Amino acid sequence: MSQLQHKDTVSWINLDGLHNTSIMQEITTTFNLDTLVVPEVLNTDARPRVIEYDNCTLITIKMLMLNESDGTTVIENLSLILTKTVLISFQEQKGDVFEPVRERIRKQKKRIRTGGTDYLTFALLDIVVDNYLYVISVLGDKIETLEENLLLNPNENTITEINNYKRELNFLRKNIKPAKEMIFSLAKTDSDFITENTYIHFKELEDNISQANDATDSYREILSDQLNIYHTTITSKLNDIMKFLTVFSVIFIPLTFIAGIYGTNFQYIPELSYKYSYFIMWFIMIIVAIGMLLFFKKKKWF
Amino acid sequence: MSQLQHKDTVSWINLDGLHNTSIMQEITTTFNLDTLVVPEVLNTDARPRVIEYDNCTLITIKMLMLNESDGTTVIENLSLILTKTVLISFQEQKGDVFEPVRERIRKQKKRIRTGGTDYLTFALLDIVVDNYLYVISVLGDKIETLEENLLLNPNENTITEINNYKRELNFLRKNIKPAKEMIFSLAKTDSDFITENTYIHFKELEDNISQANDATDSYREILSDQLNIYHTTITSKLNDIMKFLTVFSVIFIPLTFIAGIYGTNFQYIPELSYKYSYFIMWFIMIIVAIGMLLFFKKKKWF
Amino acid sequence: MSQLQHKDTVSWINLDGLHNTSIMQEITTTFNLDTLVVPEVLNTDARPRVIEYDNCTLITIKMLMLNESDGTTVIENLSLILTKTVLISFQEQKGDVFEPVRERIRKQKKRIRTGGTDYLTFALLDIVVDNYLYVISVLGDKIETLEENLLLNPNENTITEINNYKRELNFLRKNIKPAKEMIFSLAKTDSDFITENTYIHFKELEDNISQANDATDSYREILSDQLNIYHTTITSKLNDIMKFLTVFSVIFIPLTFIAGIYGTNFQYIPELSYKYSYFIMWFIMIIVAIGMLLFFKKKKWF
Amino acid sequence: MSQLQHKDTVSWINLDGLHNTSIMQEITTTFNLDTLVVPEVLNTDARPRVIEYDNCTLITIKMLMLNESDGTTVIENLSLILTKTVLISFQEQKGDVFEPVRERIRKQKKRIRTGGTDYLTFALLDIVVDNYLYVISVLGDKIETLEENLLLNPNENTITEINNYKRELNFLRKNIKPAKEMIFSLAKTDSDFITENTYIHFKELEDNISQANDATDSYREILSDQLNIYHTTITSKLNDIMKFLTVFSVIFIPLTFIAGIYGTNFQYIPELSYKYSYFIMWFIMIIVAIGMLLFFKKKKWF
Amino acid sequence: MSQLQHKDTVSWINLDGLHNTSIMQEITTTFNLDTLVVPEVLNTDARPRVIEYDNCTLITIKMLMLNESDGTTVIENLSLILTKTVLISFQEQKGDVFEPVRERIRKQKKRIRTGGTDYLTFALLDIVVDNYLYVISVLGDKIETLEENLLLNPNENTITEINNYKRELNFLRKNIKPAKEMIFSLAKTDSDFITENTYIHFKELEDNISQANDATDSYREILSDQLNIYHTTITSKLNDIMKFLTVFSVIFIPLTFIAGIYGTNFQYIPELSYKYSYFIMWFIMIIVAIGMLLFFKKKKWF
Repeated sequence: MSQLQHKDTVSWINLDGLHNTSIMQEITTTFNLDTLVVPEVLNTDARPRVIEYDNCTLITIKMLMLNESDGTTVIENLSLILTKTVLISFQEQKGDVFEPVRERIRKQKKRIRTGGTDYLTFALLDIVVDNYLYVISVLGDKIETLEENLLLNPNENTITEINNYKRELNFLRKNIKPAKEMIFSLAKTDSDFITENTYIHFKELEDNISQANDATDSYREILSDQLNIYHTTITSKLNDIMKFLTVFSVIFIPLTFIAGIYGTNFQYIPELSYKYSYFIMWFIMIIVAIGMLLFFKKKKWF
Repeated sequence: MSQLQHKDTVSWINLDGLHNTSIMQEITTTFNLDTLVVPEVLNTDARPRVIEYDNCTLITIKMLMLNESDGTTVIENLSLILTKTVLISFQEQKGDVFEPVRERIRKQKKRIRTGGTDYLTFALLDIVVDNYLYVISVLGDKIETLEENLLLNPNENTITEINNYKRELNFLRKNIKPAKEMIFSLAKTDSDFITENTYIHFKELEDNISQANDATDSYREILSDQLNIYHTTITSKLNDIMKFLTVFSVIFIPLTFIAGIYGTNFQYIPELSYKYSYFIMWFIMIIVAIGMLLFFKKKKWF
Repeated sequence: MSQLQHKDTVSWINLDGLHNTSIMQEITTTFNLDTLVVPEVLNTDARPRVIEYDNCTLITIKMLMLNESDGTTVIENLSLILTKTVLISFQEQKGDVFEPVRERIRKQKKRIRTGGTDYLTFALLDIVVDNYLYVISVLGDKIETLEENLLLNPNENTITEINNYKRELNFLRKNIKPAKEMIFSLAKTDSDFITENTYIHFKELEDNISQANDATDSYREILSDQLNIYHTTITSKLNDIMKFLTVFSVIFIPLTFIAGIYGTNFQYIPELSYKYSYFIMWFIMIIVAIGMLLFFKKKKWF
Repeated sequence: MSQLQHKDTVSWINLDGLHNTSIMQEITTTFNLDTLVVPEVLNTDARPRVIEYDNCTLITIKMLMLNESDGTTVIENLSLILTKTVLISFQEQKGDVFEPVRERIRKQKKRIRTGGTDYLTFALLDIVVDNYLYVISVLGDKIETLEENLLLNPNENTITEINNYKRELNFLRKNIKPAKEMIFSLAKTDSDFITENTYIHFKELEDNISQANDATDSYREILSDQLNIYHTTITSKLNDIMKFLTVFSVIFIPLTFIAGIYGTNFQYIPELSYKYSYFIMWFIMIIVAIGMLLFFKKKKWF
Repeated sequence: MSQLQHKDTVSWINLDGLHNTSIMQEITTTFNLDTLVVPEVLNTDARPRVIEYDNCTLITIKMLMLNESDGTTVIENLSLILTKTVLISFQEQKGDVFEPVRERIRKQKKRIRTGGTDYLTFALLDIVVDNYLYVISVLGDKIETLEENLLLNPNENTITEINNYKRELNFLRKNIKPAKEMIFSLAKTDSDFITENTYIHFKELEDNISQANDATDSYREILSDQLNIYHTTITSKLNDIMKFLTVFSVIFIPLTFIAGIYGTNFQYIPELSYKYSYFIMWFIMIIVAIGMLLFFKKKKWF
């Protein structure tokens, strides 16, 4: 490893897993890093930040990766230690999102091989942010599908879906917002290890992380709107249900009352003995029912 | 095409469709453009942006056009490559919104023919933004009609309309907000290809795109208000329905109970044998009903 | 008209109606105005703006006037052309809000007669903004009356009123917000026709238009609160209605059931033949009813 | 009064009531004030403002005082005219909040007697703002009491209280917000009558008025939350009421139907003549009722 | 105590309880503090602030400590008096959050012993802010648990929990927001007692208090969302309840009516004497019930 130090070109060392303390130690001594760097790298719960040391710069950010098989989002802390000649990246787990960068290095792309550690840092952060955008877009597609189905086919799952999407979005916002702050502070930093040329690229990074941040805010608004629309829709349906029950009840209540009247056992009820009373009762009932229907028609209840 | 390069006047080359790679190639070589320009032009999903190259400036923006026949909004990516002498515009499809500019050129309008590629760029962007305003105003008219009918004639479609307008508005906002950012950054850019005189026009462009952006925000607020008002309206109607059902039920429930009492077959019910019992029952029922009505009147339920 | 040009004092020319093109032409030539001014004056749909020409400044703003007879708000476009010696104002209709200024001129008030066209411009804009404040205060009084009655005497019109006031307020905001932007940009303009002394007055104008703008925002919040309170109130009433229906139904449902049981025609129902069964039934019913009432009392439903 | 002018020390003249025009006149002439000051002092409806005249500064602000006997808030316009040697304060009514300042003057407190008119102005404004904080804290205590009782003991008055508090808060905000703007503009003013030392005190005043303003905003949010929570609570109660009605109705509806069936007078109903039919009917009814109860138990409706 | 004054090293004096006025007096005289400091220290209700005196700086802030036994949050005012050589801290009660700092001092940590009073101030404030973050995270965990259970297992306590968390959060915000303002103003202060090196640490403090403030805002949003989702959920349940009641009622209402018709005692009802009438009635009833069920099936009501 020590020969890396003396190479004239730029080196990228990528470490998976933070448990191997001996390697950590070796790196610290090889590259003559500040002793405070390693504890910061191990503190994977801290928010994204840039720390300037005398002979290196530490950048930490959260990686968000979509697990394509089950649709969950995996989160991992990434620490980048940047010196003039070496970029050391620390990941918690094997498996990352940097394949495209490796591909570009293998393919001997000019920019990535000649651009210095700062350009490589940009390239890695850019891919991390691209993955933010990808994770958001996948969630966004689900939200837009929900939006289309909201009125066509609302059902019991709608509210569960809205709640799940809200929670996923809160999770994304919680990670993306501090990342945005970190990237903006990085672009304003005057680190010795970032050249003037690369600042232009950080500007692009700012645009992308802003877009990611705006997208989460915008989807949040859409979800709130959807919840409101869903709430109004079910209140509207409740209205229809109650109208139906009311129309039906109100028509039959007086009819059942009339039948009840002539079901009484009073000894003297004059109507009972008239021959056509039964048919007159039916006639009156039909008149009452039609009258009610016309009344509801006028009230535009159906 | 190569003779265009040597003309003393300003040229505008407009290309429909991005699939003809040979023409793309020819343009690149003829006008000696940066090789990175073509990939950017082909990336039609990217957000509106301004990129400065050594010998040209790339401006991309989304065109929104209303399809008058079915009321849908068509979206298309527009890329403008700006050099000192030539403006090249790339569209995805045939059919655009630039007819007024062509008309002005044909009519030999002074400003448009002498103003340089930067003025022509302004003229094209201005028409794109005018179309934003037009698309918004068409949607805005629908929203205002809805607003007027909301209380006069609310119906089942109200919520569907509100939802559709929200979605259309979200679509517009998603395209107009980054366009606004692009135009504001364009006005701050110190490109070699934009003269001092034209900056004043970009100020006007800023005003227009701000107006477009404000209008979408304002219509968004109006739609939220409408949803709230509609929700309150249907809750209010639910109230009326339940009042009606309650008044009706509560009047008949005790009457039907009384009839039920005298429908029982007990051998000894003293009231049954009195001659006027039946009429007394009717009398009591009418008293009860009137009492209930007075009670509800006092409660102001109808 | 041409002699106006040579007067040493300040002149104010006020034109009602924009259809007389010959007068328009005469003014343009008399005062040697930029040919682009007239089209801008005729474009009465444009938003309030300040345009600097070589020999004049154009200011446009919307006038809002309350039609006292029917309470509607009349809107009209006002264009002011400002040169060193002349202020020309264009209105769409006869009838304006400038009577107080004319009064001050007639009364030979010192300031208004010696202050230059810029002071006169301020005086006219000030009156336009005062009318904004007046129109808002009239609407605000109605909103505050509504607020007071909201709980004392809520009725079916409440929601209609809230909706109408929201619409009126949206109308005001749509006109006042761009007027505010115009006045703020006017105060920052370094026009040749506005003297240092008058800038202090524009500061006052800024205060007033800000106050107008804040008032519309504040009334908007109040209306939203009122809608929420009204919604909660009717939900609360719905609660009371349903409690009443439930208490009433639940008391009578078992009683009617008991009556139904003894209305059956089974040949062998032992209870029917006991002499006091009928009275026992009444007793049981009264016990059940009292039990129910105590239950609801305990549940605090009435 | 004229001898006041020549004193070497600072004088504070406090006037209650603005109707005595002769005193007004005398003050104007004695202290050689700008003639425009008096009309501004009399215009008690205007918003708080600072106006710089050649030989004095006018500061106006609203005083808010809690009437301890009935809990209402009294509002009064206060105008302060500030010259090098004299501070003149105008109040609309007798009775003010300045007792502590007078006390400090009587007690010969060093600072208040040697600090100049600017320090005295600060002391008066400070007490006005302290009263804002006091009025807010009294309202805030009521709101927090409401918050505590909201779920423990919600009742019909809750919504009335929320509405009243909202209105009181709107009243406070309407007066405190422009006062805040006035005080911030005062701190930025470079008046001849305010010394460098006193500016530090105005900083403290800014803190206090900001605190007052923040508190009104924060209580406003709390009230909105309370309204939402109350709304959700009553919807939740409505749910319980409807569950109860539904469970009760649904159990008795089929039982009453069965009784109705055997109450029919068909000549041939086989069940009627079986000896144990009546008991079988009871048995079936009990089975149905238990089945229903189990069904609702499973649905967790009670 | 007086010997403390002359030590070359930095001293930290910590006082619990503010009632011992003689100690207060002694401190004031020993360290030659401004006489205005003590009243400010005793004013424990005031908001967090920084006051610069000639020979010391006063910093006050609220300490928030979680009482682990009952989960309540304890609040206490902390005052720090900062001179070149001594840091005096005043607490209201015994028991604080400074154990880690004392531990570092005992362990002879370099930084804390050599860093001056300003570094010690930072260390204490940092621990106060860390406790804010801890208190928020404990509340946040509860809120997130609520969020997970909201749809799986909503119950009557949900709304009580939401209300309690809102109140706790309002309590935290009320204390954290002014602390944030204080810390930001502290970082901008150019106090004689804070060295350039320590300002970098105050930057870190700003980050932490911003994070605390953002977290309260974010949890506030989450709680509002949860209340909305809970409200929509119970409205949705109300819908289901009413559907169930309506389906059940509407099926039995006409059946009970039919039974009522044939329970009447008219002398001439032709149907009664037909032998199979009773069975025909049952048949018709079953047809009606099945028809209703199919109707509701079609309406997708169950």
